[in-house]
Parts: sequence; C-alpha cells; structure tokens
Amino acid sequence: FVQKLDLELAAIEKGNYDHFMLKEIHEQPKTILDSLRGRLNAEQGYITLSGLNKIEEKLRNANRIVIVACGTSWHAGLIGEYLIEELCRLNVEVEYASEFRYRNPIISPQDVIIAISQSGETADTLVALENAKKQGAAIFGIVNVVGSSIARITDAGAYTHAGPEIGVASTKAFTAQVAVLQLFALKLAQLRGTIGDSLFQHLLHELEAIPAKVEWILDNQVEAIKAIARRYRDADNFLYLGRGYNFPIALEGALKLKEITYIHAEGYPAAEMKHGPIALVDEKLPVVFVATKDIYHEKIVSNIQEINARKGKVVAVVSEGDETVNELAEAVMVVPQAHEIVAPLLSVIPLQLLAYYIGVERDLDVDKPRNLAKSVTVE
Amino acid sequence: FVQKLDLELAAIEKGNYDHFMLKEIHEQPKTILDSLRGRLNAEQGYITLSGLNKIEEKLRNANRIVIVACGTSWHAGLIGEYLIEELCRLNVEVEYASEFRYRNPIISPQDVIIAISQSGETADTLVALENAKKQGAAIFGIVNVVGSSIARITDAGAYTHAGPEIGVASTKAFTAQVAVLQLFALKLAQLRGTIGDSLFQHLLHELEAIPAKVEWILDNQVEAIKAIARRYRDADNFLYLGRGYNFPIALEGALKLKEITYIHAEGYPAAEMKHGPIALVDEKLPVVFVATKDIYHEKIVSNIQEINARKGKVVAVVSEGDETVNELAEAVMVVPQAHEIVAPLLSVIPLQLLAYYIGVERDLDVDKPRNLAKSVTVE
Repeated sequence: FVQKLDLELAAIEKGNYDHFMLKEIHEQPKTILDSLRGRLNAEQGYITLSGLNKIEEKLRNANRIVIVACGTSWHAGLIGEYLIEELCRLNVEVEYASEFRYRNPIISPQDVIIAISQSGETADTLVALENAKKQGAAIFGIVNVVGSSIARITDAGAYTHAGPEIGVASTKAFTAQVAVLQLFALKLAQLRGTIGDSLFQHLLHELEAIPAKVEWILDNQVEAIKAIARRYRDADNFLYLGRGYNFPIALEGALKLKEITYIHAEGYPAAEMKHGPIALVDEKLPVVFVATKDIYHEKIVSNIQEINARKGKVVAVVSEGDETVNELAEAVMVVPQAHEIVAPLLSVIPLQLLAYYIGVERDLDVDKPRNLAKSVTVE
Repeated sequence: FVQKLDLELAAIEKGNYDHFMLKEIHEQPKTILDSLRGRLNAEQGYITLSGLNKIEEKLRNANRIVIVACGTSWHAGLIGEYLIEELCRLNVEVEYASEFRYRNPIISPQDVIIAISQSGETADTLVALENAKKQGAAIFGIVNVVGSSIARITDAGAYTHAGPEIGVASTKAFTAQVAVLQLFALKLAQLRGTIGDSLFQHLLHELEAIPAKVEWILDNQVEAIKAIARRYRDADNFLYLGRGYNFPIALEGALKLKEITYIHAEGYPAAEMKHGPIALVDEKLPVVFVATKDIYHEKIVSNIQEINARKGKVVAVVSEGDETVNELAEAVMVVPQAHEIVAPLLSVIPLQLLAYYIGVERDLDVDKPRNLAKSVTVE
C-alpha cells in the first residue's frame, strides 16, 4: 500500500521536465511497453488479451464494430477502423459520441461497440454506451483510468496502463490507446483467421520494437524539432496532411497544435486538399505532411510537389533514409522505419513535440491550455 | 437544336450578376425544383425515382450503403448517411474516395455504393467505383454532368439537373445532390417499410416547400448577410459548428469560406469543440453556429453560451422566430422553419452567401479561387 502511494506520487510529479506534457511525451517508450506487457509475446508468437476472450464469440460473429469516442480518442478510433478493416476484414464505423447518442443509431445485438476514453468519464461517450447496451450490443472498453464510469459499464475491456496523465492535451494516453487497438486487431484477426501466420508473427515483432524506436526519436530528433518550432512559431495557420494510417495522425497532430499553441491547424486526408483546402496555401502557410514510407508514399510525394509549386512551406515527418522527401521539404522530422500498420505510433511523436515546443516558444501554459478541461464530464 | 444551344448559352452567361457564383446561388430555387421535378408528387403522395427502381431488389436486401465522394460532394454524402440511417434504418458509411480506393475496402455483392460527383469525372471516385464494381457491388450515381465517366460506370442513378456550374466553389450542385438524396432516402424508406405514411406525406410537402423557402432567404437575408460580411471580413479564422443534420452544413460552410476567401475556417460537430478546438476561441474569433430549430436546439444554445463566456463572436443561422439565439448571437442569418430532415437545404444558403460576400469584400476572384480546379480529374 505504501509502495503504491510512492509510485503514484512519482507519476504526478514533473521530475526534471519543465512541464507534465513534456514528461508524458518522454514517458511513451515506457507507457507503450506497459500497454503491451503481459499481452504481447513476440518470441513465442502470441497475444493474450483476456478482455477480448470474454466476448470472443460475439466478436467472431460480429456484423460490424462501432467505435465511439471524442477528441483525441476519436483519432485513435480512426486508426482502429483502418486496422480492424484491413486485418480482420470486418466493417468498422467510427462515431463522434456526441452525434451517435442523439442520432437514434442502428444497433443490433450482433454489433460490438468499442468505447475509447482516457478518463473513462466522457459524458457523451458514457450516454452513447448506455443506449447501445440497452439495444443488446456488447461493449469493449479501452480506457486509461481504472474503475472509471465507462470501465464499469463495459462488458469487457483492456486498460491502456498509461498511468495518470496530467497535461490537458493527451499524448501518452493516445499512443497507449493505439497500442491496445493494435493488439486487439491482431488478436481478432487471428481468431477470425483473416491474417496469415507469417504476417502475424512479423507484426508482433514490429510492435515489440516500437518502444525502442520511440526512444530513438526522443534521443535524436528533439533538437531538430526545436529548430522547426522556432522557425514556424509565428505562423497563423497550419495544414496537416496524411494518407491511410497517417491521416488520423495528421488530424491528431493538428489537434495538438490547436490545443497547445492556439494556432489554427487543420488535418485532412492529403488527396482532399485539391477539393478546397489548397486555396489556403500561400508563401506563409506551413503544411505538415506525415509522409513515412508506406504504400501511399509516391502519392504523397506528388502532393508535396503541388504544395511546393504553390510556394507553401513543406514540413514533413519522414522515415529514416527518405532522400526524396528530404530534398522536397523545408524541414523534416525523422522516425525509424516501421511497418505501416504500427507506424502511427512513431509518426505522432514528432507532432506532439512540435506542438509542445511551439507552445513553449509562444510562452503559453502548455499543461493547462485556455478554455480546456482534462476530461469533458458534461455534455 | 438551335433552341438547345440558346439554353446552354443562357446557362453559361452571368446575366445581371457580378459573378457566376452569385448567379448560381440565386438559381437554387429553380435548380432544387428541377431536381425534384417529375420525381416528387406531394399532392398525390408519391416519389418516382426510376434509377432507384432499377436496383430496387438490391436496395431492399442491402446490408449497408457506402457513399463515396470528395470535397463538397462528401459533405452531401454525410447528410445522406444521416438521412438513410434515420429513415431507412440501414447502415451507411461515407468514405473519402481517395482513402477508400487504397484501403482494400471490404465490399460484398450485398453492398450498394452511392457515388456523388458534380462533374462525374472525379478521378479518385471513379477508380474507387471501378474497384467496387469488380467486387460485385451495385453502384448508384448522383451526378450532375450527363454522360460523364461516373454516370457511365454506374448501374443506376439520378442526375441532379442543376445545370452547368461555372463557379469553382460548388453551390447549386450541392443543394441538388442533397435534394436527390432526400428523394432517395424517402423512396427507399417507403420500399423498406421503415417510414409511417403520415411522416412520409408530411416530408413530401416539406420538400416541396423548399424552393419557395430558399427564395425567401434570397429575397430577405442578403442585406443582413452583406453587413455580416463587412463586419467580419478581416477575421483570420472562423469556426463553424453544428449538430446532427447541421454538422455537415457546418463543414460545407467552412469549406466555402476557405475556398472563396482564403480565410482558414474549420467545421466541427458542436459537441467536439470542448475536446480541443475551443482553445482557439478568443475575442477575435467568429464562431458560426448552424442553430436552426431541431431536437439539438437546447444543446446548441448551451454551446453558444460557452463561446460567449469565452468572448468569442457568435454568428448564427437561426430559424425564423428564434428569440433565444437572436439574443445570444452578435449577428444572425434567418431561414424559414422546416422539418430538420429537409432543413440542410435552407441552412446552407446563408453560408454560401456569407462566403461569397466576404470574398467580394476582400476583392478576390470568387469564381476562380487560387489553386483550385473545377473538377479534380487527376489523383
């Protein structure tokens, strides 16, 4: 009991960091490891996710999965959609909890709902779940705070084990949510027989390698990111663009910037830029591309060239060794190479740091941005 | 033949309007009527949509509908999702064509795809359809340009009959798409037996009344909207917020402003503002609420009060006679009362005009905004 209290005190003190947000960003090699620990065994080639076993039959026979969340958790949900559709060949819808709860949604007992919430107290998500439960759907929770209201209402779940998050803008809770969604999708794919064994084994090793790769980013990219923060700190607007698994990361990167720096940043699927947002591009606008090596790489290179042709300032998150984007961009933030399925856990890290350091450059209270509350417990 | 050419010339001349965009906004009472003509018969209480009949069996037995589109058409698609889920009790997903085509989407022969495109030449949408077709899904097109590539690839469809749209930012093509989606959803609801006859009849009359109500907005609100445009023309950023059917309208209003004025405007579901975007709110930020009378009205009033508490500048689209929001907002744009299901066809009109007049105030080329093409025929 005494030991438990000590641990909790350490978790809520800043240590050597200027802000909780910076501390929490730097905790991510450990927190991602914590969310994988006891669940992922790459050497012996299996995943244990006891929460999933509880509703295994429901999940095997599910018609579809509906992910319900708000804010940053909604972005994690979008990654979950891409993961589960690709690996498990099961339709997934991601809903804003606030919209879902009022829309008389079509829920059947064959549906499985995944609720994602750091605090486990998000009011709109909670009510949405209560409604879905009445209609017979099974509910799986991905929640950080143990014993919270959402954790209590679910039929099964997996805690994210990110520890207390004090910074109002979510960082380590987000990567922990994504890590759990990776485990969930891989395990479910195995149960449904929709993934080959060699890909399964490969992805387990890719996932296991993530904490060390996050560490690498934190050890090697902070100075470059600080320089980018100084260079663009006076920008009034940003665009963040990505495709595939990097599209939700573009949304999350933009949200971090909005929350911490009050700069208006907006995320878009990169191909949508031509359907409107590209009108914003001029010689003052930084456009952040999440451009890691994946099947979309060639397309995103061509999007970057279009922004360059219109004199926008291209900043990019790139994979190590990507000379092409390195030459096209004004500035790059490098992440280690990784399979595209686990890559979002890496590409979000520089964007968290970028928002943080621009906030610091602008002398703002990054741990408690104006107008925001840590958890939204009212409607 | 000669007569046909005359008509086409009239359609591509500006007449008494300063810009094609303004002309096309003002054409909407007629173009919405054109998209309803011969299809909606409110007096005798039926809808004829011959395209729908062609795939009636598929639609009766459909597992779900997937709507594929880009840009403004994607916003029409979101309204379609809300309509079809509510009226037909059928799951609908709306996908960005660019994301959908690369994501190895799960398509079955029981799925029906709705493709929405003004030009019928949108490259990403076209390729997405070719893929879906190979997987056996039926494809229904909602297209403006007769004989276009997308129109040709579909199994069935309904032309929007909005006439040639010259302004690069879509206005009348959008309302025509929404009008066709209304007809589609109502007809399908009747076929599937998911709508009671009295609601069906009521909605037919509500839809029939739309063109005259759009006319009322154009006759009575232009001066008020011009004044709002003058008042806020120097703002650097805007937020647009709405709930339910008005959420896609908030997205569309923000997109119009981005396209025409190069002001960074972003749309959000109103309840999401507390999960991040509210950090942007200060005494300089105009927040446009789409706040017409519907089941969300009380919630949106409370969102408006929160923005007021943080000294944001609230501008609102309100229903005639809404004293509550009238008192809370700095400025209002009034639309006639209408059932919430048809209301998006009204609430978008003031937002089109607002973008147009701010563009004019800023002395921009509203018909040909920088960096944009009328149809995106490359990836």
